[in-house]
Amino acid sequence: ATVDKEVDFANYFCTYAFLYHQKEMLADRVRMDAYFNAVFQNKHHFKGKVVLDVGTGSGILAIWCAQAGARRVYAVEATNMAVHARELAKGNDVGDIVEVIQGSMEEVVLPEKVDVIISEWMGYFLLRESMFDSVICARDRWLKPDGVMYPSHAQMWMAPIRSGIGEKKENDLESAMSDWNNFVEDTESYYGVNMNVLTKQFREEHEKYYLKTSLWCNLHPEQIVGAPVVIKQIDCLTATVDEIRTVSSKFSSSIYVDRTRLSALAGWFDVHFRGNPQNPALNEIELTTAPSVENSTHWGQQVFLLQPALRVNEGDVFETSFSMHRSKENHRLMNVDLTYELKLASGNQVPPCSSKYYVE
Amino acid sequence: ATVDKEVDFANYFCTYAFLYHQKEMLADRVRMDAYFNAVFQNKHHFKGKVVLDVGTGSGILAIWCAQAGARRVYAVEATNMAVHARELAKGNDVGDIVEVIQGSMEEVVLPEKVDVIISEWMGYFLLRESMFDSVICARDRWLKPDGVMYPSHAQMWMAPIRSGIGEKKENDLESAMSDWNNFVEDTESYYGVNMNVLTKQFREEHEKYYLKTSLWCNLHPEQIVGAPVVIKQIDCLTATVDEIRTVSSKFSSSIYVDRTRLSALAGWFDVHFRGNPQNPALNEIELTTAPSVENSTHWGQQVFLLQPALRVNEGDVFETSFSMHRSKENHRLMNVDLTYELKLASGNQVPPCSSKYYVE
Ligand SMILES: Nc1ncnc2c1ncn2[C@@H]1O[C@H](CSCC[C@H](N)C(=O)O)[C@@H](O)[C@H]1O
Ligand SMILES: Nc1ncnc2c1ncn2[C@@H]1O[C@H](CSCC[C@H](N)C(=O)O)[C@@H](O)[C@H]1O
Repeated sequence: ATVDKEVDFANYFCTYAFLYHQKEMLADRVRMDAYFNAVFQNKHHFKGKVVLDVGTGSGILAIWCAQAGARRVYAVEATNMAVHARELAKGNDVGDIVEVIQGSMEEVVLPEKVDVIISEWMGYFLLRESMFDSVICARDRWLKPDGVMYPSHAQMWMAPIRSGIGEKKENDLESAMSDWNNFVEDTESYYGVNMNVLTKQFREEHEKYYLKTSLWCNLHPEQIVGAPVVIKQIDCLTATVDEIRTVSSKFSSSIYVDRTRLSALAGWFDVHFRGNPQNPALNEIELTTAPSVENSTHWGQQVFLLQPALRVNEGDVFETSFSMHRSKENHRLMNVDLTYELKLASGNQVPPCSSKYYVE
Repeated sequence: ATVDKEVDFANYFCTYAFLYHQKEMLADRVRMDAYFNAVFQNKHHFKGKVVLDVGTGSGILAIWCAQAGARRVYAVEATNMAVHARELAKGNDVGDIVEVIQGSMEEVVLPEKVDVIISEWMGYFLLRESMFDSVICARDRWLKPDGVMYPSHAQMWMAPIRSGIGEKKENDLESAMSDWNNFVEDTESYYGVNMNVLTKQFREEHEKYYLKTSLWCNLHPEQIVGAPVVIKQIDCLTATVDEIRTVSSKFSSSIYVDRTRLSALAGWFDVHFRGNPQNPALNEIELTTAPSVENSTHWGQQVFLLQPALRVNEGDVFETSFSMHRSKENHRLMNVDLTYELKLASGNQVPPCSSKYYVE
């Protein structure tokens, strides 16, 4: 189920129409370095070639491809940012190579097939925004049989972590509830209406907001308490929408920190620029959004709180069954089902828990 | 031009589906007192009558009408908040009088005509959200010829004010620009792309955001430096959509503070509950959102910055030509054109200035 196209424009695309937002991405040095190095350390993929940039935004990737020697770059952008991209290409003397086309990728018609598709389509936890659908659509229609995808591969990771943020959110919830309770009292005494009828619903609404919605965090690597696990691998050259619509993984992670608390699962992703088997990259570049002290990105990590937190020890094994699917109301947002249990090094077992989350 | 219905639901109605947001309105004591007193001090309008509550939200107004003796209350609400309203009515023992109908006012069908229409339809600066359109539609279809509107009248006000917020916003703009300039330098040196081409556009985007978008403020009455003026009066019983689609007013305000700065115009509104001429209120109630120390509301005031601020003296006259119309892209948001000049008490005149604003 995709949302109405007009709604999608109003909600999803609107933010990308602001230079303010494009600048946030352009100022992400880890992201920029990865794409810059991927292009300029693999000029053989671009020299004299035809390139398609899916969602060009400010035009930055398209301009780099032109500077790396592309013969022609089609730069497709749905929002009015296309106007700025056109000026930026002109102002950087590649206006005759970069052709900015304003429109949605699903609908535009290119004059020719392309040798390379480049795109920065990754959302939080890789798949939020579902923009890779548009890249798949572009690939199936416009990439030559021997064409190359930039990036060529993507992976999703999860790991058990410790963090104080769960307590913070529980406190926020409790103070919202105590505020609500005062409000109920006041409304009864001033206006003769008993709002207590809605207390349960108010709590549910706020639990969803504070505890069940995955949190953006910029984690320190030392917050990871068990082995990170790859839960999904995507080959950008062959992946289908069916393959990414749902992500399911059963995995176990060995706790490697002794006497600690396991308070959440964190999710992140990396992408790789490897060219393709017939036409590999000279220098393979990786862009990772894993917890890092010096190389954090605007994507951060997505944190799924476990309630209550678990006490764990080195050697315990955390077993998870993870499943993520698109929200019915908005295909660009995700719902997550998690079931987990802890196998203690002692041989005992903590009974399984299940929980639902929203990636919004 | 109204926006696509699905977009309207996604953007406009979505916030109202949260108890969090309804509670903000329910906790506004000035708002609540006004409607509460309007109903309970005029029970003759409700006793044994049929009432329609347009946009019932949590159901609060509908419940009060039932408590005041209404025979039947139709409570129409577009969002899922309707489910909560139904429970709240039940929980307050008026479930057999209040009939909650989930749907948009424009589309629902009532089993009978009504004696009273009550609604809290007012947005920032009265008309933002354009919800009064729905009340007009309800009135023309469902109100009996001798029916009563709650509220019965509405007015928009403007006044010249002094405030430091303009400087604050100018500083915010300048720091955004100096940040941008650093970013331009970095992008050139690290990535070989000259972003300076977009500096003008970046400034325009940020000027719009910081200086041209009206600001929500909770002003102190002493910030008003000239006589407040009514710029629009609405009789809720007779007003048409054509009458409120555009608000135009030429007005002058005498400065009554000596040696001060005129840095902005502020806009606010009030509504009155007067019943109707054949069937007047026993006690007329007023709900005002004017600057106030003790009785401020969640609506606050909307502030339109004048750049640069003007030095003014007692006896100067500030003449304004004000025009507000709906945004082409979204009929619930407004664009404002302002032309103003200052007639000095000395007889001199400061040349007129024009400016555009956005009420978003
Ligand atoms: N289906 C689609 N068709 C056209 N543009 C799309 C699209 N889906 C997303 N986009 C655009 O893709 C951009 C993704 S953000 C990346 C921008 C730029 N390539 C950079 O790396 O800095 C946004 O500007 C968004 O508006
Ligand atoms: N055309 C329409 N049809 C039905 N509901 C509408 C509507 N336009 C606005 N609403 C609803 O009207 C409410 C306005 S807020 C006021 C809520 C409540 N009457 C109170 O006074 O507390 C929102 O809940 C909104 O969803």
